[in-house]
Amino acid sequence: MLHFADFLMSIFRRASVPPGSPPGTLAPTQGADVEPELILARYNRDQLEEKRLHGKEVSWTAAEPGMMTWADLRGFGDGSVLTKLGEEFGLHQLTVSDIANLGQRPKVEDYANGIFVVMRAVELDQDQRLTWSQVSMFFDSNDVLTFQDKPRSWLDSLRSRLHSGRKVIRESRADYLACMVMDSVVDSYFPMLEHYSDRLEEHEECILAEHFDDDLLGELYLTKRDLAAFRRSVWPLREALAHLSREPDDVLSASAKMYLRDTMDHLMQVIDVLESYRELASSLVDVYLSLVGQRTNEIMRVLTIVATVFIPLTFVAGIYGMNFDTSAATNLPELGWRYGYIFFWILCLVMTGGLMLLFRRLGWLGGKQQAK
Amino acid sequence: MLHFADFLMSIFRRASVPPGSPPGTLAPTQGADVEPELILARYNRDQLEEKRLHGKEVSWTAAEPGMMTWADLRGFGDGSVLTKLGEEFGLHQLTVSDIANLGQRPKVEDYANGIFVVMRAVELDQDQRLTWSQVSMFFDSNDVLTFQDKPRSWLDSLRSRLHSGRKVIRESRADYLACMVMDSVVDSYFPMLEHYSDRLEEHEECILAEHFDDDLLGELYLTKRDLAAFRRSVWPLREALAHLSREPDDVLSASAKMYLRDTMDHLMQVIDVLESYRELASSLVDVYLSLVGQRTNEIMRVLTIVATVFIPLTFVAGIYGMNFDTSAATNLPELGWRYGYIFFWILCLVMTGGLMLLFRRLGWLGGKQQAK
Amino acid sequence: MLHFADFLMSIFRRASVPPGSPPGTLAPTQGADVEPELILARYNRDQLEEKRLHGKEVSWTAAEPGMMTWADLRGFGDGSVLTKLGEEFGLHQLTVSDIANLGQRPKVEDYANGIFVVMRAVELDQDQRLTWSQVSMFFDSNDVLTFQDKPRSWLDSLRSRLHSGRKVIRESRADYLACMVMDSVVDSYFPMLEHYSDRLEEHEECILAEHFDDDLLGELYLTKRDLAAFRRSVWPLREALAHLSREPDDVLSASAKMYLRDTMDHLMQVIDVLESYRELASSLVDVYLSLVGQRTNEIMRVLTIVATVFIPLTFVAGIYGMNFDTSAATNLPELGWRYGYIFFWILCLVMTGGLMLLFRRLGWLGGKQQAK
Amino acid sequence: MLHFADFLMSIFRRASVPPGSPPGTLAPTQGADVEPELILARYNRDQLEEKRLHGKEVSWTAAEPGMMTWADLRGFGDGSVLTKLGEEFGLHQLTVSDIANLGQRPKVEDYANGIFVVMRAVELDQDQRLTWSQVSMFFDSNDVLTFQDKPRSWLDSLRSRLHSGRKVIRESRADYLACMVMDSVVDSYFPMLEHYSDRLEEHEECILAEHFDDDLLGELYLTKRDLAAFRRSVWPLREALAHLSREPDDVLSASAKMYLRDTMDHLMQVIDVLESYRELASSLVDVYLSLVGQRTNEIMRVLTIVATVFIPLTFVAGIYGMNFDTSAATNLPELGWRYGYIFFWILCLVMTGGLMLLFRRLGWLGGKQQAK
Amino acid sequence: MLHFADFLMSIFRRASVPPGSPPGTLAPTQGADVEPELILARYNRDQLEEKRLHGKEVSWTAAEPGMMTWADLRGFGDGSVLTKLGEEFGLHQLTVSDIANLGQRPKVEDYANGIFVVMRAVELDQDQRLTWSQVSMFFDSNDVLTFQDKPRSWLDSLRSRLHSGRKVIRESRADYLACMVMDSVVDSYFPMLEHYSDRLEEHEECILAEHFDDDLLGELYLTKRDLAAFRRSVWPLREALAHLSREPDDVLSASAKMYLRDTMDHLMQVIDVLESYRELASSLVDVYLSLVGQRTNEIMRVLTIVATVFIPLTFVAGIYGMNFDTSAATNLPELGWRYGYIFFWILCLVMTGGLMLLFRRLGWLGGKQQAK
Repeated sequence: MLHFADFLMSIFRRASVPPGSPPGTLAPTQGADVEPELILARYNRDQLEEKRLHGKEVSWTAAEPGMMTWADLRGFGDGSVLTKLGEEFGLHQLTVSDIANLGQRPKVEDYANGIFVVMRAVELDQDQRLTWSQVSMFFDSNDVLTFQDKPRSWLDSLRSRLHSGRKVIRESRADYLACMVMDSVVDSYFPMLEHYSDRLEEHEECILAEHFDDDLLGELYLTKRDLAAFRRSVWPLREALAHLSREPDDVLSASAKMYLRDTMDHLMQVIDVLESYRELASSLVDVYLSLVGQRTNEIMRVLTIVATVFIPLTFVAGIYGMNFDTSAATNLPELGWRYGYIFFWILCLVMTGGLMLLFRRLGWLGGKQQAK
Repeated sequence: MLHFADFLMSIFRRASVPPGSPPGTLAPTQGADVEPELILARYNRDQLEEKRLHGKEVSWTAAEPGMMTWADLRGFGDGSVLTKLGEEFGLHQLTVSDIANLGQRPKVEDYANGIFVVMRAVELDQDQRLTWSQVSMFFDSNDVLTFQDKPRSWLDSLRSRLHSGRKVIRESRADYLACMVMDSVVDSYFPMLEHYSDRLEEHEECILAEHFDDDLLGELYLTKRDLAAFRRSVWPLREALAHLSREPDDVLSASAKMYLRDTMDHLMQVIDVLESYRELASSLVDVYLSLVGQRTNEIMRVLTIVATVFIPLTFVAGIYGMNFDTSAATNLPELGWRYGYIFFWILCLVMTGGLMLLFRRLGWLGGKQQAK
Repeated sequence: MLHFADFLMSIFRRASVPPGSPPGTLAPTQGADVEPELILARYNRDQLEEKRLHGKEVSWTAAEPGMMTWADLRGFGDGSVLTKLGEEFGLHQLTVSDIANLGQRPKVEDYANGIFVVMRAVELDQDQRLTWSQVSMFFDSNDVLTFQDKPRSWLDSLRSRLHSGRKVIRESRADYLACMVMDSVVDSYFPMLEHYSDRLEEHEECILAEHFDDDLLGELYLTKRDLAAFRRSVWPLREALAHLSREPDDVLSASAKMYLRDTMDHLMQVIDVLESYRELASSLVDVYLSLVGQRTNEIMRVLTIVATVFIPLTFVAGIYGMNFDTSAATNLPELGWRYGYIFFWILCLVMTGGLMLLFRRLGWLGGKQQAK
Repeated sequence: MLHFADFLMSIFRRASVPPGSPPGTLAPTQGADVEPELILARYNRDQLEEKRLHGKEVSWTAAEPGMMTWADLRGFGDGSVLTKLGEEFGLHQLTVSDIANLGQRPKVEDYANGIFVVMRAVELDQDQRLTWSQVSMFFDSNDVLTFQDKPRSWLDSLRSRLHSGRKVIRESRADYLACMVMDSVVDSYFPMLEHYSDRLEEHEECILAEHFDDDLLGELYLTKRDLAAFRRSVWPLREALAHLSREPDDVLSASAKMYLRDTMDHLMQVIDVLESYRELASSLVDVYLSLVGQRTNEIMRVLTIVATVFIPLTFVAGIYGMNFDTSAATNLPELGWRYGYIFFWILCLVMTGGLMLLFRRLGWLGGKQQAK
Repeated sequence: MLHFADFLMSIFRRASVPPGSPPGTLAPTQGADVEPELILARYNRDQLEEKRLHGKEVSWTAAEPGMMTWADLRGFGDGSVLTKLGEEFGLHQLTVSDIANLGQRPKVEDYANGIFVVMRAVELDQDQRLTWSQVSMFFDSNDVLTFQDKPRSWLDSLRSRLHSGRKVIRESRADYLACMVMDSVVDSYFPMLEHYSDRLEEHEECILAEHFDDDLLGELYLTKRDLAAFRRSVWPLREALAHLSREPDDVLSASAKMYLRDTMDHLMQVIDVLESYRELASSLVDVYLSLVGQRTNEIMRVLTIVATVFIPLTFVAGIYGMNFDTSAATNLPELGWRYGYIFFWILCLVMTGGLMLLFRRLGWLGGKQQAK
C-alpha cells in the first residue's frame, strides 16, 4: 500500500522553497545529503574514456573536438557542483533550480545553446513500492548532461551499451544518446504497468468469483489513486516529447527524431494502457457494488421468505397457547376438538403452501435456488 | 468469456524486449516458431504469377517493369527472412522491429520510399473467441508488402479477387491493393460488431424481462471490457487513416484516396456503433442496478407488511397465554370472559384493518399488487 | 417500444455485403423488391413538366437549356435503373453503392461535377413507431437527383411548392432545391422531438408524483437508447452541412448558402434539444433511483419501529407464559401478585415510551409523519 | 416550480411553422395578438427626439445626417409592420422570419449592410417565475433596430440613460448603443443567478442539517433542469459575441469592441457561476443519497441489534412455556427447579451480554451512540 | 467550514452595480471603507526611495528618467484616488471599474500603453479560513501599479527583496517586478494546497480505517466544493498568463518571459494537484458509499442468520406451548412422551444444523467471520 505522503510526493512539490523567495532559489530537498558523483564519459566511434569524480574533485575540461560527452551527475550536495556545471554550460539560474528542486512537472524547454528536459522515472524499491524520481537532462549536439538526486540503476544498461563497442550509440551524435535516455525513462514505465496489470487481474478474479474481502474496496481505491498519479506524471511528458519532435532539424537531427518517434509510440502505448486500466478499475468498483447490492437483495429475500412463513405460524401457535377459560364454549373451542392438533397442522400447511405459491409468482423461489 | 491475459494482449505489449535494450531489437514473441512463408504475387492487367516460398527458399528478384508486386510474409521464424526483405526495401531497423514485435499501436509512418502501416485485424477462432492479430504493411506505388505472424484466412478473398481476372484491382497500381488490404482489416471488424450486438440484445432481453442471473453482471462487465479494448484498437487506426488521406497525390494516387475514403467511412461507422454499444452497456448496468434496488424495495415492503401485521398480533396472543393467577380479579380478566376469544379475534381484526388502512395511505398495497 | 433490431438498424448497417467483397459492390438490402419509380420534374420560372416513369420505362434525355431537373428515384429494384442513372451523371461506382446499401453515415462528398449528400430522414409509421430512412442526393447547378428505397411522403410538400407557381423555388437554380431537400430532412426531426418531449413529460410527471410503475425504468432506458441513436444520426449531418457551407461560391451559390445556414440553425436547435433531453433522461433515472432508495429507507423505518417495539414486548409476554413451578417462591412471583397484570401493562408502556423517546431523538418519528 | 411546458419553451421552438413550409414563412406564435408599438428615438450629442407609433401609424422616414436612430419594435401583430421595417432596411426574408418565430438559438449574422443578433433575455414575472424572451437586434453604424414580442421593462434603464443628457451613449455612434443592448441582456442574467444561489443555499442547508424533506429531491432535480436550460441559452450567446468581437473595425468600432469585451467578461462570469452551480447541484444530490444510505444503515443496525437480542430470548421464554408432561423427569426439569426462574434470567443475561460483546467487536454499538 | 456566502463570493460577483447601470460605473463594494494608502517605491540599480501616502496626500509626480516605479494602492475609499491614478496613467474607465468592483474573473488585457492584469490571491485568515482577494495590476516597462482592496501581507516579502540591495529585481526593468507580483500570487496557492492535502489525508485515513463519522460526508462535500471554487479561480489565470507569454518582446522582455514561464510551470502544478485532489475526493466519496453499502450487507446477514434460525425454533416452542386437550390421543401426543423434551431439543438442533449448512453453502458464515 502506497502511503499518502509518498503519493503526494509523486504529484505535488511540497513547498521546499518558502513562498516569496525569488525564483531560482536553490534549496534541494532531496539529494542534499548525497555526495555528488559525476560520471563523465567521453566517446566517439573509436574511443571511450570514463571518469568518476566525487564531491570536490569535480572539474570540467572541454572535450577534444569530435568527442561526445555524457556527464551524469548523481546527488546534489550543497548545490555547488551543480552550480559549477550550470555555469560551465551557461544554464539559466531557473534551469539550475528546476534541476535541484525535485517534483517538477515533465517539460521541455529550448535554450539558445541546447534543450532542457525534465522527466520522471519510476522504479520498484526493495519493498516493491513504487518510487518516482526526477531526471533532468540538458543536451546539445555534442554534450548530454543528466542529473539525478542519487545514484540509481536505470541508466546502467544504457552505459553498458555505450561501453560495448561499435554500435549505433557510438557512431551517432549526442542527440541520439539524449533520445536513448528518454527511451530509458519510458521503458521504466513498463514494469510498473505489469505490476498494476497483476493487481487488477487479482482484483478481477476476486470480484468475478465473488470472493469478497473487506480490504478489496480499499485496495481498488488505492490502485485507482496510483493510476491517477501515474497518469499525471505521464501526460505532461507526452506533450513535452511532442514539442521536442517539432524542433527544427538543426537542433535535433532527423535520425534522432526517428528514434524519438519510436519512444513516443511507446509512451502512447503506456498512456493507452493506463487509460484502459483506469476504466477497468472504475468498472470493477461498479461490478463490486452491484454484486454487493445483489447479495443484499438475496439475503433480504431469504429473510423475508422465512419471516413471512413463520411469523404467521407462530401467531397461530400463540393463539392455541392462550389460556381463555375453555369452559365457555365460545372460547377456543378448537382446543377441545378431537382432531384439533391435526387441524392446526393442516392450517399451518395451507398457510405455508399459499405463501409458497405467492413467492413462486413473485419469482423469489427461483432466485433462492440460483443462489445456492 | 475472454480471459484477462488475452484481454491484456489486445491492449498491452508485454515487454517482449527487456527494458534498456537498444531500440530496433528484434525479438518476435509470436510468429517465431512459425516457418516463414512468402506468397509473392506479381501482376499487371494481363498477367499474374504467384509463387509460394518457404523458409530459406525466400529470395528476392526485382519485378519486371510494369508489374506490381504483392509480397505476403506469414510467420517470422528467427527474423532472418524479415531482415532480408527489410534490407531489400530499405526499411529502417525500427520499422522491421515494429513488424516483428507484435502489439504495436495502429499507425501510419511516411518514409522517403513508401508508407508503412500497422493495423490490428480481428478474427473469431474455433472457440468463438476473439483474437486480435497485428498486420503490418509497407507499400510504394509498385509494391505492397504485408506481414503477419502466422497464416490467416482473412486476406484470401482479396487474393482470389486478384486471381479472378480483369478487375479494378488488376488494372490499378499497387496503392489500390494497399487500400484494399486496409479495407479488409476494417471489414474484419463487422462480424465482431454483430457478435457484440447479439450479446447486448441477449443482455437487454434478460434485464427488461427481469430474468436476472447471477452471472449477468459479470458478463456485462466483460462485454464492457471487451468493447473498451476494441475501441482502443480502432481509434488510433482512424487517426492513422486520416493522416494517410492527407498525403500528397504523388504518394497516394487520387483514385486510391477515393477508396481510402470509403474505408474511412466504414471505420467511422464501426466507431459510431462501438460508442453506441458502450453507452448501451453502461445504461444496461444502470437499469440492472435500478431493478435490483427496486426489487429489494418490494421485498422489504412485503416483509414489513407481514411483520408489522403479525408481530403485534403475536404479542396479543402472548398476553393471553400468560399464566397470571386469575383468581385475582385484576389479572387477565379477559380470560374469564364468555366471549373473550371472540373479543380477541375482533381485536386482531381491528389492528389488522388499521394497519391495512395505514399501508394503503402509504401506497404500499398498490405496489404489492403490481409486483404480482 | 422500439425493438432492438430496429434500433440497431438505425445505427448499424448489418453487413449486407459479405466482408471481402470489392468496394462498390451493389447489393441493396432494402428497396430491392420495390419496382423503381422515377419522378422526373423539369422546370424553370415559367414552365414545369413532370413525368412518372416506372421500372424499365426509365430513360434519360438531356434537359433543354435553362431548365432545371429534379429526378426523384424511389425503389432500386435490381439496381439497373440506379446504375443507368449513375452512368448518365458520371457517378463513381462507390457513390452508386452508397446509394443502394442503406445504413450509411450522413456525409457530404465533393465530386468534380457536383456534390453528393447522404442524409437520414425519420418518419412515424402507422404504429407510431419511428422509422429511419436513408435519403441520398446528388446535385449540380442544374440538376437534383434524390434517391430513396421506397416511396415516402415527406418530399410531397416540397413537390407541391414546386407546382404552385412562381415562387422562389421556381426562380432559383437547382442548388436552392437541393437546400430545400436538406431542409425537409431536418424538418422531419421536429415531430420526433415532440414525440420524445411528450414521453419525457409523462415520465417526469410519474416520477415527481411518485407514481412508480414497474415498467417505468425500462421505458426510461428505451427513451435514452432512442435518443442516443437519434443523436448518432444527427451529429454527422451537422458536420456534413458545415462542410457544405464552406464550399466555394461557384459550387454552391451565395443565396443557396443563406438558406443552408437557416437549415443549419434548425439542426443546431435539434441537437441542443436532443442534448437537453439526454441530460433530462439521465437526471430522471437518478431521481427515480433516489426516490426508491428513500422509500426503502422509510419502509425500513416503519419495520424497525414496529419490530423494535413489539419484539421486546412479546418477550415479556413470553416470560409470563412460562410454566415454572410457582410453588417455589422464587419462580415467577409476579404471576401470583394481585396487580401482576397491571404491572405487566405498566412495564409494557414504560418500554414503549422509552423506545418512542429514543426514536424521536433519532428523528424517525417525524419522518414517519412526513411519509403519510 | 417551473412547469415542464415552460421549460421546453425555453429550449425548444415548438414547430410553429408546419414542416415542409418554405423557409422564411412568417407565422409569429407570440406577439401576434399584441398591437405593434414602435418607439423611435433619434439622437446625437445635442438632440434627442422620441416618438411612439402604434399599429398602422408606423411609418419610416430617413434620419437627418448625423442623427443616430434607435427603433424599438414591441409586438408583431400580423407581421405587416415587421415586414415594412424589414424592407426599409433591406433585411432578408429569413432574417425577418427569425425575428418573428420566437425560440431561436442566440446567434450573430453578418449582412452586407449591418449585423443581426438574436439573444435571449430573462425576467422574473409577478409569480417569481423565470420567463425567457427573445430579443432580436439589427444594427449598422447609424441605426439600431430592436425587436421584442411584447413590451418589456428591461430596456427602460437604457432608454433613460439615453434621455439623461450628455453621456457616452449620446456621444457615441449606434454600435455603442447596440453593445449596451447586449450588455442589458447579459445583465438580466445576474438576478437569476442570485435566485438560484438562494435556492441552492437553502437546499444545502437542508441537506447538511439532515432536515430531509420528501420534495427535496424533486426540487433539486428541477433546479438542475433549470440550470441546464439556462446553460443552453447562454453558451450559444458566448459563441455569438466572440464572433462579433472578431469583426473588422469598420463594422464594429474599436471603442465599441472594448465595451463588448466588458460584456463578454460578464457573460463568462455568468457561465462560470452556472457551471459551478450545476456541479454543486450534482454534488448535493450525491450527498443526499449518501446520507439516506447511511441512515438506512443506521436503522438496520438498530433493528438488527434489537431483533438479534430479543428473538433468541423469546425462544427461550417459549421453551419454558411448553406444556410437556413434567411428571416424566426428563421433560423440562428446569420448570421444577427451585431457582428455575433465576436460572432463566441468568441465561438471558448471559446471552444478551455475549451478543453485546459481539456487537462491540463489530463496531455497531459505537455507531449507535454516534447516531444519537 | 467555509460558509456558503463566502463560497459564493469566491466565484460570484454579487451585483454590486444595479443591472442597467452604464458600464464603467464605479461602486466598490469592498475597500470603500478603507482609507487609501499608496506605497510608492522608486528604484533603480543604485537607489531606492519609498513613500507612504495616505488618503488625500496621494499625489503623483513623474519619476526621474531611469527610475522604475512601483505604486501599490491599498483600499479604494470613495474611489477618487483610484480615479486620479487612472487618469495619470490613461487607464480606460472600464479598467478602473474592474479594479474597484471586486470579484472579477482573472484576465489579461492589452492596452496601447501597457498591460492590465486581474488576479485572485488567497490567504488563510486568523480563523484558518480561506479568503480570496482580488489583485489588479497595470504595468508598462517603467511602472507597476498594483491595487488591493485593503492592506495585505502577501506582497511584503517582495518588497523586502526590493529593499535588500543589488539583486536581479533591482537591476531589471519594471516588467520583471510585474512577473514577480504574478509569481507571488501563484505562490499564495501552495499553502492552500497543503491545507487541502491535510484534509484529504485525514478523510482518507478515516474512511480506510472505517472510522465513519456522521459529518464525514458533509466535510467531503465541502472539500469538493472548495476545490471546485479554487479551480474556477485558477483556470482563467492560466489562460491569462498563456496570453501574456505570447506578447511580443517589446511589450514583455524576453528575460521577463523566462520568469513568467517559471510562474506558469508553478501554476500548471497547482492545476495538476487540484485536479488530482478533485478526483481523489470523488473516489473517496465512492469508497465511503461502498463501505456503507457493504456494512449494510453485513448487518443484514447477521440479522437474517439470527432471524432465520430462531423464528422457526420459536414456532416449534410455540407449538408445544399450545393448550390442546391432550386427553384426545391425537392432540399433541409429544407432550406426553417420556423423552418429549429431548425430542424437542433434537428437533431444534437438526433444524439449526440444516440452516447452518445452507448458510455455509451460501457463503454467509465465512463472511460473518471476516466481519469480526
